[in-house]
Amino acid sequence: MLKAVERKIEQYIIDLDEPEILGLYAKLPVGKRLRAKLILRIAGSNLRVVKTAAIVEMIHAASLLHDDVIDDADVRRNKPSINALYGNKTAIMFGDILYSKGFFELGEIDPKIAQIISNAVVQLSLGELRDVSLSQSFTTNKDAYLKMIYQKTASLIEASAESAALLAGKKPEPYRIYGRNLGLAFQMIDDILDITSDSATLGKPALHDFEEGKTTLPYIYLYEKLDTTEQEKFKFMHGKKLKKNEQEWIKVQMKNHKIIEQSYAEAKALIDEAITLMSTEGEDALSTIAKEMIERDF
Amino acid sequence: MLKAVERKIEQYIIDLDEPEILGLYAKLPVGKRLRAKLILRIAGSNLRVVKTAAIVEMIHAASLLHDDVIDDADVRRNKPSINALYGNKTAIMFGDILYSKGFFELGEIDPKIAQIISNAVVQLSLGELRDVSLSQSFTTNKDAYLKMIYQKTASLIEASAESAALLAGKKPEPYRIYGRNLGLAFQMIDDILDITSDSATLGKPALHDFEEGKTTLPYIYLYEKLDTTEQEKFKFMHGKKLKKNEQEWIKVQMKNHKIIEQSYAEAKALIDEAITLMSTEGEDALSTIAKEMIERDF
Repeated sequence: MLKAVERKIEQYIIDLDEPEILGLYAKLPVGKRLRAKLILRIAGSNLRVVKTAAIVEMIHAASLLHDDVIDDADVRRNKPSINALYGNKTAIMFGDILYSKGFFELGEIDPKIAQIISNAVVQLSLGELRDVSLSQSFTTNKDAYLKMIYQKTASLIEASAESAALLAGKKPEPYRIYGRNLGLAFQMIDDILDITSDSATLGKPALHDFEEGKTTLPYIYLYEKLDTTEQEKFKFMHGKKLKKNEQEWIKVQMKNHKIIEQSYAEAKALIDEAITLMSTEGEDALSTIAKEMIERDF
Repeated sequence: MLKAVERKIEQYIIDLDEPEILGLYAKLPVGKRLRAKLILRIAGSNLRVVKTAAIVEMIHAASLLHDDVIDDADVRRNKPSINALYGNKTAIMFGDILYSKGFFELGEIDPKIAQIISNAVVQLSLGELRDVSLSQSFTTNKDAYLKMIYQKTASLIEASAESAALLAGKKPEPYRIYGRNLGLAFQMIDDILDITSDSATLGKPALHDFEEGKTTLPYIYLYEKLDTTEQEKFKFMHGKKLKKNEQEWIKVQMKNHKIIEQSYAEAKALIDEAITLMSTEGEDALSTIAKEMIERDF
């Protein structure tokens, strides 16, 4: 039924009656449609469900368009980003168009669902700001990290799952928690992959987050394990282009202190909770989505 | 009652629970609040009206934040723009936050009003794209200009007036046309002022639009009046930094062909229609707003 969602998004784009947007949309790297899949698995595939999934994917695409401008990212899903192809200005405008069309169509669905999803977009945009703010300095505040990834990544997945449950007449709370946990784990694993994957897989240099000034979960855990001298050395490397031997040092420390295992266990605990919740609800397909996420390439 | 609107906007900003946003909001150049004034004059000042006015002003502020990034504008209302103060990225994120908070709060007002205003935001973001596209080349297509200024400027003013009429239980159509005409005239006069004002008043060089590649109404009319040789000369100057003598030549041609008068008359016709409509409805205060707009400094 993902095809019906793709067709609905295209329909929304065509509604805009602007040939330039059609051209831009054709160049937009399409992702895994995780949010749409979740919504369809939870709520089936009637028209309102397909519309909701399409709207959420448009909003998600809008947020990525702006993220890529903010992060100066040239590549998205191994394809050139819209800002790389057409410049930042076009990416900003195209993002605004997808956001506003998404919000407009949201009003046609249901007031409660509009509230849940638009609140998630507020969180998402606050999360982007918080991500940038946290990157301004070396921060080992785990709570701040968790709040930021909740806002930036988990909020829209949480809202997708909760909205889908409401559309299907299911009790929303377990689905909301499932979505939140999935979103948090998703971002944690993304942050782990930035360390463990090679640059060919990532489409960017490994340890890129750390070089960019970010201190994600593995770095927070590593810092806690280092002695004072090592902590100083570690802090000194932060937010700069790393030399080969510095990269090696960080990776050896991560290995010695079993940091990746520790971080992965934290993501896995969230996924396990999500799986248990869905088993209780008799939602085996949703357990499978959760399992697949934790088993992404390392 | 404009103070109640300001307080409501502040309240919405405080709701976001993010100190950084409070700081950014304090630096946001505050405009004339035309849209809020219109809404209050049409619909009085109960809480729902004040909320609608606050939401529209937040959405308008968001659109200006992104516009200033797209236009590389350092100055807004004789104060430094947010992008000039804090960079493009912060301006994009702050705009996204104001947009999403606005949309979220819109859902609390009324579905019909949410639909009208969110549709205007779609138009507004399409208008920004169209403005940039039209600036890529010398265009003397008046219909394209009118459509662009309708989308970019008039749509949200039109939606403000129509929403306010609905909130007040008045028949929406005359107010919608009033708002649309006001918005179109407002942009035409802005485009005229770019030619007639000096750089001190504008906070940017005169004829800036033309240098930036825009062909606004006066330029479209002037082109129609020039002979073939002059048209070539005129086209050649377009989209470049103008020399002193080129500026002079354009201004002399504008004067000889009474272009400013012709353009002004077009804006005035729209305002006159708006005034007549409002007189019929017994809305003298709204006629006054319309008159004041056409009498801005030349």
